[in-house]
Amino acid sequence: MRTSELVTPALLVDAHRLEDNLSTMADALPGSRLRPHVKAHKCTSLAARQEHMGHTAFTCATIREMEGMARAGLGEDLLLANEVFDATRLGALARAGARVTVAVDSDATIDAAARARVPEVVIDVNVGLPRCGCPPDQAGRLADRARAAGLSVRGVMGYEGHIVGLEDRPRRAAMLQESMGQLVLAAGDVGGDVISAGGTGTYDLNAWATEIQAGSYALMDTAYGNLGLPFAQALTVVATVISVSEGWAVADCGLKALGMDHGNPSIEGADVWFCSDEHVIFVPEFRARVGDRVAVLPAHVDPTVAYHDSLHVVEGDEVVDRWEVDLRGW
Amino acid sequence: MRTSELVTPALLVDAHRLEDNLSTMADALPGSRLRPHVKAHKCTSLAARQEHMGHTAFTCATIREMEGMARAGLGEDLLLANEVFDATRLGALARAGARVTVAVDSDATIDAAARARVPEVVIDVNVGLPRCGCPPDQAGRLADRARAAGLSVRGVMGYEGHIVGLEDRPRRAAMLQESMGQLVLAAGDVGGDVISAGGTGTYDLNAWATEIQAGSYALMDTAYGNLGLPFAQALTVVATVISVSEGWAVADCGLKALGMDHGNPSIEGADVWFCSDEHVIFVPEFRARVGDRVAVLPAHVDPTVAYHDSLHVVEGDEVVDRWEVDLRGW
Repeated sequence: MRTSELVTPALLVDAHRLEDNLSTMADALPGSRLRPHVKAHKCTSLAARQEHMGHTAFTCATIREMEGMARAGLGEDLLLANEVFDATRLGALARAGARVTVAVDSDATIDAAARARVPEVVIDVNVGLPRCGCPPDQAGRLADRARAAGLSVRGVMGYEGHIVGLEDRPRRAAMLQESMGQLVLAAGDVGGDVISAGGTGTYDLNAWATEIQAGSYALMDTAYGNLGLPFAQALTVVATVISVSEGWAVADCGLKALGMDHGNPSIEGADVWFCSDEHVIFVPEFRARVGDRVAVLPAHVDPTVAYHDSLHVVEGDEVVDRWEVDLRGW
Repeated sequence: MRTSELVTPALLVDAHRLEDNLSTMADALPGSRLRPHVKAHKCTSLAARQEHMGHTAFTCATIREMEGMARAGLGEDLLLANEVFDATRLGALARAGARVTVAVDSDATIDAAARARVPEVVIDVNVGLPRCGCPPDQAGRLADRARAAGLSVRGVMGYEGHIVGLEDRPRRAAMLQESMGQLVLAAGDVGGDVISAGGTGTYDLNAWATEIQAGSYALMDTAYGNLGLPFAQALTVVATVISVSEGWAVADCGLKALGMDHGNPSIEGADVWFCSDEHVIFVPEFRARVGDRVAVLPAHVDPTVAYHDSLHVVEGDEVVDRWEVDLRGW
């Protein structure tokens, strides 16, 4: 099948760029040094490629992702890097044979894990991003409580989400050092051998974590594209031009095909004006004609992929595979 | 089932508010005066409620929506208010018995409709929103071309999307008059008896259109909520508090559960800071505890619904029905 035969909008993954991204990362962070985050692609077929590169432990953001990974035979070591109040399904998943670890940051989430008989936890530490995670000085106390509740404490995690996207690399490095200093101190109080942290933007700077939770590096987006990382934009949304006016053109890729929290997508050789539900409106430098295909580059990959039911793997204009985006929903 | 038993995040539709919204609109625009736009909810069960209120003609934004509506027995008069370059599936839909009309705004889209044997078209006229639609003075020529190609021309459409969201009602009315003046002139050149236009923000101001394409009125969102319309917010995303820190709390409803193009969602009695993939971070005036349920109000309903596989219809805390969001994708 050719890309020109696809119903648009459709997600395209450049097979060679994807493999380059995966192997560049596997060279930098081989095996268990990387715990790929599946939230970025929500696709077990892509996760299987990451496993093929040597990474057998994965990071998830939702229980559905944990379940889907286990069902796909990728449940050797799954970390839910997020708090849950109802861990029932996680307990069941562990008893069905997957290795299940969940992040906890409070008495309530520890109790939830214990109640559901989730065997293993990491203490989630706030390292500067105002989101989840306990204050660093509380980590030891929570670890004690978790052990008292019968849970095995593997160590700590702390996501430096306020740092991974900083374009100024020296500033990124300096802030990272401060942030990870807190995590390492907390790890000493907690015990265990896991210090899980990091993302695509700090993958080669984070020397403190024992494992890096990067996800975006596989497909990339225009936001991360500004950081000068050695990963190429492998994901595009192919759209069809449906209307051309004096001064602008419209293609069929809109708000329901694109994560918009990082702003408008990009189109090479064009200025994107705005998006509607099913439209992207742009001023092309090239001559656009109704029926032309255009490649739309999303600003943020994760919420883009979550709108689509499949990834089309392409080599040039040929669609060589179709991967289901099978980890969507909750 | 109680709402407290739902896996979160989950879409809730308040049954009474929905029925009130539907009947308020049906009173104002009875029967064929309203052509409800299904893109706002992507749900044939909800469309069936609109049909029950007397509206038997519907507006769609995608071919998938057209197909799904026909499959659900709601194909009496379906308008695809959008241009398509490949109309093959629309032609097949018409031959299978649905009444299918498609918007055209160029020679290329007219030829596409004729090639696919889509029986009926409307000429889409640009009435001020820089998106699809021909210049008003080209509408007559395109109608002639469509008829010459064997198509039946039902009239015109023109969406005043640059006006529907204006909070200043007198300004909205004044701009609408100018915009619709252009459409009425074009309608004279085109012929036919359809002048299709409008949205929730102009439903009671647009006296020029023969039918109004409103969709958001059924569920509403916080963006339209600022206009003082007689429609209530019927859609919320229920989320669970998963983490509480000194100064903020986090619930499990993020970028993959919310359309973000109109900005952050709202939480009553709280200041929303930001969203991550699976988190909303907010400063509550109330005391938030892990495990609490919170109602998150999306800024934009359409791309919010498109992330979810079902709408849970609720009366108070009771889930009385589950409607599949069955018109997603393309």
